[in-house]
Amino acid sequence: MKIPKDMNLSVKSLGETNISSPLSKHTECFEDNFFFTDSKKMRIRLDAHITPEYSETKNIQSFELAGPSRSIYFEPKKTRAAIVTCGGLCPGLNDVIRAVVMELHYWYNVKNVIGIRYGYSGLATNPEYPPMKLTPDIVSEIHKQGGTILGSSRGHPPVNEMVDTLVHKNINILFCIGGDGTLKGAHALVEEIERRGLKISVVGIPKTVDNDIPFVYKSFGFKTAVAMASQVIDCAHVEAVAAKNGVGLVKLMGRSAGFISAYATCASGNANYCLIPEMHFEPKGPGNLYQHLKARLLKKEHAVIVVAEGAGQHLIGDSGLCDASGNKKFSDIGRFLRFGMTDYFKSEWDMEINVKYISPSYIIRSVPANSEDSILCADLGRLAVDAAMAGKTDLMIGHWHGEFTHVPFKAVQGVKKRVNSEQRLWTSVLSCTGQPLNWW
Amino acid sequence: MKIPKDMNLSVKSLGETNISSPLSKHTECFEDNFFFTDSKKMRIRLDAHITPEYSETKNIQSFELAGPSRSIYFEPKKTRAAIVTCGGLCPGLNDVIRAVVMELHYWYNVKNVIGIRYGYSGLATNPEYPPMKLTPDIVSEIHKQGGTILGSSRGHPPVNEMVDTLVHKNINILFCIGGDGTLKGAHALVEEIERRGLKISVVGIPKTVDNDIPFVYKSFGFKTAVAMASQVIDCAHVEAVAAKNGVGLVKLMGRSAGFISAYATCASGNANYCLIPEMHFEPKGPGNLYQHLKARLLKKEHAVIVVAEGAGQHLIGDSGLCDASGNKKFSDIGRFLRFGMTDYFKSEWDMEINVKYISPSYIIRSVPANSEDSILCADLGRLAVDAAMAGKTDLMIGHWHGEFTHVPFKAVQGVKKRVNSEQRLWTSVLSCTGQPLNWW
Amino acid sequence: MKIPKDMNLSVKSLGETNISSPLSKHTECFEDNFFFTDSKKMRIRLDAHITPEYSETKNIQSFELAGPSRSIYFEPKKTRAAIVTCGGLCPGLNDVIRAVVMELHYWYNVKNVIGIRYGYSGLATNPEYPPMKLTPDIVSEIHKQGGTILGSSRGHPPVNEMVDTLVHKNINILFCIGGDGTLKGAHALVEEIERRGLKISVVGIPKTVDNDIPFVYKSFGFKTAVAMASQVIDCAHVEAVAAKNGVGLVKLMGRSAGFISAYATCASGNANYCLIPEMHFEPKGPGNLYQHLKARLLKKEHAVIVVAEGAGQHLIGDSGLCDASGNKKFSDIGRFLRFGMTDYFKSEWDMEINVKYISPSYIIRSVPANSEDSILCADLGRLAVDAAMAGKTDLMIGHWHGEFTHVPFKAVQGVKKRVNSEQRLWTSVLSCTGQPLNWW
Amino acid sequence: MKIPKDMNLSVKSLGETNISSPLSKHTECFEDNFFFTDSKKMRIRLDAHITPEYSETKNIQSFELAGPSRSIYFEPKKTRAAIVTCGGLCPGLNDVIRAVVMELHYWYNVKNVIGIRYGYSGLATNPEYPPMKLTPDIVSEIHKQGGTILGSSRGHPPVNEMVDTLVHKNINILFCIGGDGTLKGAHALVEEIERRGLKISVVGIPKTVDNDIPFVYKSFGFKTAVAMASQVIDCAHVEAVAAKNGVGLVKLMGRSAGFISAYATCASGNANYCLIPEMHFEPKGPGNLYQHLKARLLKKEHAVIVVAEGAGQHLIGDSGLCDASGNKKFSDIGRFLRFGMTDYFKSEWDMEINVKYISPSYIIRSVPANSEDSILCADLGRLAVDAAMAGKTDLMIGHWHGEFTHVPFKAVQGVKKRVNSEQRLWTSVLSCTGQPLNWW
Repeated sequence: MKIPKDMNLSVKSLGETNISSPLSKHTECFEDNFFFTDSKKMRIRLDAHITPEYSETKNIQSFELAGPSRSIYFEPKKTRAAIVTCGGLCPGLNDVIRAVVMELHYWYNVKNVIGIRYGYSGLATNPEYPPMKLTPDIVSEIHKQGGTILGSSRGHPPVNEMVDTLVHKNINILFCIGGDGTLKGAHALVEEIERRGLKISVVGIPKTVDNDIPFVYKSFGFKTAVAMASQVIDCAHVEAVAAKNGVGLVKLMGRSAGFISAYATCASGNANYCLIPEMHFEPKGPGNLYQHLKARLLKKEHAVIVVAEGAGQHLIGDSGLCDASGNKKFSDIGRFLRFGMTDYFKSEWDMEINVKYISPSYIIRSVPANSEDSILCADLGRLAVDAAMAGKTDLMIGHWHGEFTHVPFKAVQGVKKRVNSEQRLWTSVLSCTGQPLNWW
Repeated sequence: MKIPKDMNLSVKSLGETNISSPLSKHTECFEDNFFFTDSKKMRIRLDAHITPEYSETKNIQSFELAGPSRSIYFEPKKTRAAIVTCGGLCPGLNDVIRAVVMELHYWYNVKNVIGIRYGYSGLATNPEYPPMKLTPDIVSEIHKQGGTILGSSRGHPPVNEMVDTLVHKNINILFCIGGDGTLKGAHALVEEIERRGLKISVVGIPKTVDNDIPFVYKSFGFKTAVAMASQVIDCAHVEAVAAKNGVGLVKLMGRSAGFISAYATCASGNANYCLIPEMHFEPKGPGNLYQHLKARLLKKEHAVIVVAEGAGQHLIGDSGLCDASGNKKFSDIGRFLRFGMTDYFKSEWDMEINVKYISPSYIIRSVPANSEDSILCADLGRLAVDAAMAGKTDLMIGHWHGEFTHVPFKAVQGVKKRVNSEQRLWTSVLSCTGQPLNWW
Repeated sequence: MKIPKDMNLSVKSLGETNISSPLSKHTECFEDNFFFTDSKKMRIRLDAHITPEYSETKNIQSFELAGPSRSIYFEPKKTRAAIVTCGGLCPGLNDVIRAVVMELHYWYNVKNVIGIRYGYSGLATNPEYPPMKLTPDIVSEIHKQGGTILGSSRGHPPVNEMVDTLVHKNINILFCIGGDGTLKGAHALVEEIERRGLKISVVGIPKTVDNDIPFVYKSFGFKTAVAMASQVIDCAHVEAVAAKNGVGLVKLMGRSAGFISAYATCASGNANYCLIPEMHFEPKGPGNLYQHLKARLLKKEHAVIVVAEGAGQHLIGDSGLCDASGNKKFSDIGRFLRFGMTDYFKSEWDMEINVKYISPSYIIRSVPANSEDSILCADLGRLAVDAAMAGKTDLMIGHWHGEFTHVPFKAVQGVKKRVNSEQRLWTSVLSCTGQPLNWW
Repeated sequence: MKIPKDMNLSVKSLGETNISSPLSKHTECFEDNFFFTDSKKMRIRLDAHITPEYSETKNIQSFELAGPSRSIYFEPKKTRAAIVTCGGLCPGLNDVIRAVVMELHYWYNVKNVIGIRYGYSGLATNPEYPPMKLTPDIVSEIHKQGGTILGSSRGHPPVNEMVDTLVHKNINILFCIGGDGTLKGAHALVEEIERRGLKISVVGIPKTVDNDIPFVYKSFGFKTAVAMASQVIDCAHVEAVAAKNGVGLVKLMGRSAGFISAYATCASGNANYCLIPEMHFEPKGPGNLYQHLKARLLKKEHAVIVVAEGAGQHLIGDSGLCDASGNKKFSDIGRFLRFGMTDYFKSEWDMEINVKYISPSYIIRSVPANSEDSILCADLGRLAVDAAMAGKTDLMIGHWHGEFTHVPFKAVQGVKKRVNSEQRLWTSVLSCTGQPLNWW
């Protein structure tokens, strides 16, 4: 899916920023450009992580740098903000919530902050669970816990209804922490808000444990998930080494993007094959996976295979099912390989192999954020507040080439990052594993 | 299965201990009883962890305390020892190997130590993999790695053949690290060794991640496995809390004994139900699991269930399969509950629940030993060497009520520890979970 | 200091237990002896961990086993309990608090529980900080945090004043979590309570990161501290190995008992010398530390020394200072060795050594409890509630030879556990390190 | 110190690259530009992390991108490579060694690789320790260990002597892993190599736990050190919270750059003050540290201070000492604050504060690399091999704005990165801590 070439990618504002930022009082002794970033533009390089069709979008030349503004739109004392977390868990959700609350409270003097419960469903007319008040005391220790204190869910009530709730609760700013679907929902909210002529800012903080949102280098929680996944690969390695013809097989998250598998493979250093959705592979036949694996076993007596859940789907047929977010449910490539491999080696080569299968599933995403992700989450939360207080809307906070940016929701809709065969990441995988290049 | 009441439970010796222990030279300045433990006897209390039929075995009144002897049987310079690791992995295997090698080398001056590869299969006449030499340099850092540097496997070649190999390789001492089956095999070796009138000591170090070997309080690696399992339960808790009617479901190892599940439940503090093989439960019907779970969800909106793989087997039928050690393969209670629960809540009460299923499998057993287990493994390895050098044989090192003991192989054959409903552990589980008592 | 031989070691009770325990209703389907432990007695073996003078105390023949009683003293609905944490931090304090609250609330229906702030100082007439209400909701996640949510402090207000406060706040049960000094204070409270003829139960839960309270095998938090200390030793090992003549030097807690140092040495497997208060050593002179170290460096090029803060005090003179608990402040043996060693090797042997000094201090005690300690803490909290509800008083919960017991405060006063040279622990240390025995 | 404006920053080559890279055979099915990066140039933005004087260096317009070349200079079969690790430890050294060996062996077919022992001292004419052979088998598991298997040291023998050794041992490529001083030494080697007209490539991999080498975003091991430091801050927070007027004080590495302190402050979220060398602060006087701290304690009862070892040196005087690398030895700001603070609060305001001081020292740098650093190290090692095999020399591998580059040694000499008050990092610190801006 292409982005229309005439899309307007400039960031929307609710209006004039006539109020001096409370942050200004801290900056007397600083030079002018300490905090304030409005005018700067960042040139975006559309490099290999983005699918080719996306890089053709010639109208994305630059993004605004994120950062605090000297003048802001919302009057702090009258401002009421809400936070919502949607979709699957990701390490760092609580870190982001904490940063938003802390920044609003201590730096912008916005004391009215509420947390919407269980994703967008908490914005229904009569939600099962009322919002919770969020204060520094309540959030001060939550960044050491996994998950989200707000709860989460997939899907959403009618957009109309959600905007009614925002109006009814006098919410001026809504922070939406979520992935693909959530950001799409956030954009729909903006459209309805504009239709009604309301002055409500909607700012997104992109969340995807699969790391597949464009213009986000490594999304928050991703590094933590990779660290956990890497430990699991090490476990599989230990099991494989200890068994005769031991094959450790690890199935990791990654529906359409194999970033977790690829990075965890590099981090562990113990995987010999990394199978991801972006790279076609065949198990059987000359020069393919099983034959290569056989050669390795004869030489080294053990091997470790990492497979992303979305890899090799052509081998197993479509399950035909979808979850509440509309995501396709995948057939199980892990179990397919686990049993298929054992049988094939037995029947084809009369060779007994010893497959040790590990599917860590939620383990890699429900742990607390590690220190790298905590740093990132705190920055994201803070910059989302900066954007919202300045009256900007219809955008998420991006992170690209070391800079945080304002990325309009539309710029990421319908586009997903992929591991690209022509980039350093995949070269690193090939180098780490020693797996052949010519399956692809 | 009962132990014959007339069983001879005294520990066997290969002969007179005429050689002064090399340890003696260290002890000049010490009082007489510093190292030497031969004469002491330990009264064994046969308490609740042991199944009732076992406690009837009236002839087990006491066990020898383990420890170094003033005089030993084997002449260090002429002694050649071998180590073998069998069965599934367990944290601490490398710690035990290291301790045996270090103790033999530095304290007993036994420099000839070899490692048998891949379990008993390495004792076949022409093993696929020859033994490896073991020296302090080779083992000095292995205790920080999971698994076993020797490899492991299930089953064994004919006993006759294994004894031939021991003879052929001039092995005087064989250390067998393994579980139920391994220790049974070790006893068979002893019988054949005696039949031939050989002077080879066979000493076992009990290994069971399920913690089901009698006279072993917490077997090595068990605490590490519990620690890992506890973290997984915490993950399930995080997932459950974040979802509406979220139910975290964790399947843990534990074929016929639920120790891992029970202790991990206590360690985590976040589980609400703990289902183990020893305690019958029914999912459906008044007052049973699903109904109790429903009540909890209505009140607390989330719950965590821990289930041992061997629990509720009456619900799912026998798979009819066995592994190479002759262990019954279990049908999958985890998947049964995962899908069964969702369907039942939907059809019976039109209630949508959100099951988050985690099956950590090998993750909990392939990590390095934690510090408690490292301490235990070092002690076990050391004491196994003490016993063997003194010419004792046909025994394993036990650990009961804070003391290490010599336990004849026959004393543990055909008997398994179980979680008993009348003991503190199960009371602790009930207290931690709040689960009802009257399913049982 | 000896315990008077005529000391009455039976446990005190406030009166008749006429109320049926709320736990009884759960036990219909159980056999009689499921929960109830009153009549059982445990024979205590006074073994090597206790100093000889203590083992002479012939009147300690047995202790009551801890556990719930069928009939209790306090009427749940009218009962008001308080918890206080005193002295230095220890992993697991929050676990104990949580267990006490949970057990009181869910199993005994005692809903009035308060937390005294900052140790005994919170029992002053006008404490700086008022007590906090404790409910299951407040404590449900605290066991994953280090420290104590109540705060802690050393010392205490006049006993009279503290009892006034207990009376004024209608407290029936006081749980005192603390060490030597705290338990002494608790006993003083009991004496004043008895003097006034009040019916207030005071139950202690022994806390000592040094593991030096008698009749407590491994005190809660100790295993966690050992695990942390063991990691620090590994760090020192890494530093030592990487430097020419590298000497890793680690100073650990342990004022008069070297348990942390001894166990951490065994757990790490990487230490070559372990110096503790119980074992005299000399650095200089033939056959002493520096000379042995020199020989090792010439052979292995690196070494690791673990030293407890209370070791070698004869070498450095008394600081003459005490802290608020009356504990002697130690001179710094770590810095003494660090610089002394470098100078001595230089001046005596013109040998450049490379000392890498690590003093982890609070790091090993301020982390959350690991899983073993979490299990222990939950049991201790629970059993303290059982004892208190049954009207028992003037006791702490002990843990010896695998059983939890009721230990009268007086039995532990003025006596400390020591690492004894004639026991397995020290043998293990000698075996792990290879350090000479004849310094002692 | 400024870089001369006429400095030649292009990368040096030993000569024509006439040999087809062994990597080429893997790339048949790939597009041309898969591996090969020679022609690309990266525009370097000289942003805030670099000190202003450096950014004036107008002649640094671009750096070569690192990556494999289609044609290489050294014939694999005849090539002999050496690796040396110098200076203080840093997490990931073993990862880099492993990656270099693996890449040379498996991808470039260079089987002759040796490891120089204990830094440059191993290149002396008669080194105490001979080099060790490095093979895939030897390095395969080392990335899970902290430290360096080669050993390290500071300083170096005469350059002349080191080049003699390289010649004598037929070394064609030398990989130097080290910091400032090491890279300076590497450049000196290149000058002598050129003087003699030799064809030896010298490639550096920058190592600095302080993260102060220019053109390296986050140097390898830095993230791991930050993660460890962040945990220590959390410990200090736990201690501070539990004490009345508790002040956790953590001293971290950072001689002239406060990156570890700044990032660890952001990662932990629990620090209230972050004192670094780049930012002047005064403890006493109106509006300064102690007064601000007092205000906080009165409100919150606890605080955490993070101080880099190089901060506040104007307060304590110069120690006047240097280490073997010529680095100035610092006076101890940690102890200065620890005691100074307590005394000042007592004497000035009669206020008892409770300082809990933690100096983790080597703990943060001797642990194994975490997964992020493992990924980085593997990339750095690989790219160093690519550069060397292509005959490039006199350069280190840089990492800037998401790209790996070739940075001539001269470009980084005498220049150090600093935390700059006008950049996002310091803004994040201010936001996380809430510390005042106007000390500076």
